[in-house]
Amino acid sequence: MSQERSRYERGRNVLSEIENDPGGSVLDDLAAFCPDLERLAVEFCYADVLDRPGLSRPERQLATVAALAALGNAPSQLRFHIRGALNVGCAPEHIIESLIQLTVYAGFPAALNAVSAARDVFADQGVVPTPTHHQTDALSRFDTGSTLLERIDGTGGTAVINSLADIAPDLGRFIVEYSFGDVYARPGLSLRLRELVTVAACTALGTCAPQLRIHMQGYLNVDGTTGELIEIIIQMAVYAGFPAALNALTQLRAVLAEQEVPSAVAGSPGCRG
Amino acid sequence: MSQERSRYERGRNVLSEIENDPGGSVLDDLAAFCPDLERLAVEFCYADVLDRPGLSRPERQLATVAALAALGNAPSQLRFHIRGALNVGCAPEHIIESLIQLTVYAGFPAALNAVSAARDVFADQGVVPTPTHHQTDALSRFDTGSTLLERIDGTGGTAVINSLADIAPDLGRFIVEYSFGDVYARPGLSLRLRELVTVAACTALGTCAPQLRIHMQGYLNVDGTTGELIEIIIQMAVYAGFPAALNALTQLRAVLAEQEVPSAVAGSPGCRG
Amino acid sequence: MSQERSRYERGRNVLSEIENDPGGSVLDDLAAFCPDLERLAVEFCYADVLDRPGLSRPERQLATVAALAALGNAPSQLRFHIRGALNVGCAPEHIIESLIQLTVYAGFPAALNAVSAARDVFADQGVVPTPTHHQTDALSRFDTGSTLLERIDGTGGTAVINSLADIAPDLGRFIVEYSFGDVYARPGLSLRLRELVTVAACTALGTCAPQLRIHMQGYLNVDGTTGELIEIIIQMAVYAGFPAALNALTQLRAVLAEQEVPSAVAGSPGCRG
Repeated sequence: MSQERSRYERGRNVLSEIENDPGGSVLDDLAAFCPDLERLAVEFCYADVLDRPGLSRPERQLATVAALAALGNAPSQLRFHIRGALNVGCAPEHIIESLIQLTVYAGFPAALNAVSAARDVFADQGVVPTPTHHQTDALSRFDTGSTLLERIDGTGGTAVINSLADIAPDLGRFIVEYSFGDVYARPGLSLRLRELVTVAACTALGTCAPQLRIHMQGYLNVDGTTGELIEIIIQMAVYAGFPAALNALTQLRAVLAEQEVPSAVAGSPGCRG
Repeated sequence: MSQERSRYERGRNVLSEIENDPGGSVLDDLAAFCPDLERLAVEFCYADVLDRPGLSRPERQLATVAALAALGNAPSQLRFHIRGALNVGCAPEHIIESLIQLTVYAGFPAALNAVSAARDVFADQGVVPTPTHHQTDALSRFDTGSTLLERIDGTGGTAVINSLADIAPDLGRFIVEYSFGDVYARPGLSLRLRELVTVAACTALGTCAPQLRIHMQGYLNVDGTTGELIEIIIQMAVYAGFPAALNALTQLRAVLAEQEVPSAVAGSPGCRG
Repeated sequence: MSQERSRYERGRNVLSEIENDPGGSVLDDLAAFCPDLERLAVEFCYADVLDRPGLSRPERQLATVAALAALGNAPSQLRFHIRGALNVGCAPEHIIESLIQLTVYAGFPAALNAVSAARDVFADQGVVPTPTHHQTDALSRFDTGSTLLERIDGTGGTAVINSLADIAPDLGRFIVEYSFGDVYARPGLSLRLRELVTVAACTALGTCAPQLRIHMQGYLNVDGTTGELIEIIIQMAVYAGFPAALNALTQLRAVLAEQEVPSAVAGSPGCRG
């Protein structure tokens, strides 16, 4: 029992750190109504998953906020985890930039509703973010976007744009100009964190397998590691269920397999294939 | 800067037309809190996308209402765009019929919640829709539905029903009787607009690839054009994110490829394949 | 007309039984605003689908509650059907256990919000559930989970865990320890009903095809029947749309095809394949 005791206690400590509410925990009502579920949530979500190494506490909160914002169907948890992000040291500007990033992957209504939630939480907490002002020059949006697309998504991203040329070239142009030229070009959030937020949201949504593959590769291209990707995915089991995590791992396996083919060839001098 | 100025101004004009609120814009609060995101939303959503030719303003609003109703997770945007649909000249009966159509593709809870939203918006705006009364005769529901299914979805639709014969024939019967015999048979919305609403909702949901293919072909079968389908899909990037639009384009490409095979054969007399 | 009359009347009777509200029906407002949709909802949802044999009324309500809880975007319908579940004789403990089960398949936010809804409904109705207290011993969580995983999901479940060994073994361990060792091991809901809830939720979500296949086979492994699976799927057309039901049937057909291969071989002595 002491091992369980320690899982529960460790989980409550993580929850307290995220929650930072001396008046009590959001789970107290649940503990009164359904104590077993409260225990399972503390042990599994907070001790087993959120306390894992491999991502910092602020990075984990950004991933959670991205997932809940993209799903759009748990507004009170979204507010709780935005507040939690502030409590563990996320800059408010990082939260806002993460939500601007989500306009691309979850659409404007989901992103705008999450920005409203952030505005309310910031006001409650007396947090005044410094608004980031950035505007890509109109004439260079396409070039700026093309450069960033190739830097981040490599050949996978360019292939998507090229594949649109015969059917919907304007959508391709919007991806370059808006997604990369306007959004990815913004300061205030590193490319790695932009991809972290993207991978978390696409994993939670569960409807973007091709894009998830491209952005997992993108995460690796901007100095992220495979181990961090696995941590993001495992964390999504908590917020979107195990199937979402398992299906994302299937995509990650495909990404890693594609990387291994050329490296295997390069690494085996006797290979003539 | 003047090109950007004009994108922003053009976007604000489109937004004003949809919003029609002399007291201010729904985006004013956002402009105060996060001015860059307000600018991006106006430029990209309203200037780049909603102001495109190829679909009328009322058709675009019906597509947006369908997407938001199907997703079910952005109720304030749903009400905003229902009001916007009225403002750009949609008949209230078109809105209601679009939502009845969605019972088939997004389920009754999503459709009923959107009808409630429409009822509230209509009451606010003093709009009194003329209720459509239509009831397919009980004895002819199956025949009426079969005829419409073949007219709209062609061999693809019949293939779905036949494929159910050995495993769930009653579900096949419900599709014929309810979806086509009851719903598609209703007056008050053209078959093309019913398919427009269906394609928009299935694109936004992102979970209906096989059905999306069938109804893209269906849209073409009832006098819609490929160009209009591409416009619906591009518009969904705004409301459900770029991955939703990209995945729908993949399905459209498959639909167009299927059409090309026979026409290529028919058009090349020397072909003996 | 009399056949239609009887579909409508039969549907209203089913609705009354679920609703049990002498003061009127939740559909009365809809009947005033959009009478055709009220009629279609009563005839199709309540007469055609919910009145079908093959699953009991309480089982059907658990499937509906699971689907609405997992989707998370129709909170008033979720409360309505939780109350309906009580009205048709579901034990409140069955409802709570179904929602604990959903932590695994739809994530904690969706499950916790549904538990909050249940708490409100129970309080309104004066229902006081007997909390189930169960805690799998810390040292036996893995073994308990492994045994249950093999019992329920058979080789399919074990294959999933094994496939994680090289990429995310801790996620595999969490599935064994948390999903099976903690959740499936709980008393208070039979394994068949746990799988019924799982199949309903995964069908409604539409993003879990591989897991849906495994748990359809799981449903059959714990004494469920193919006919019951088909009933769950047909019912999901009401709550998540026909595409969700059709796509789940595609998965079921794959499950049944896999079973037929060995049984065909076993059953045809002349076969030498």
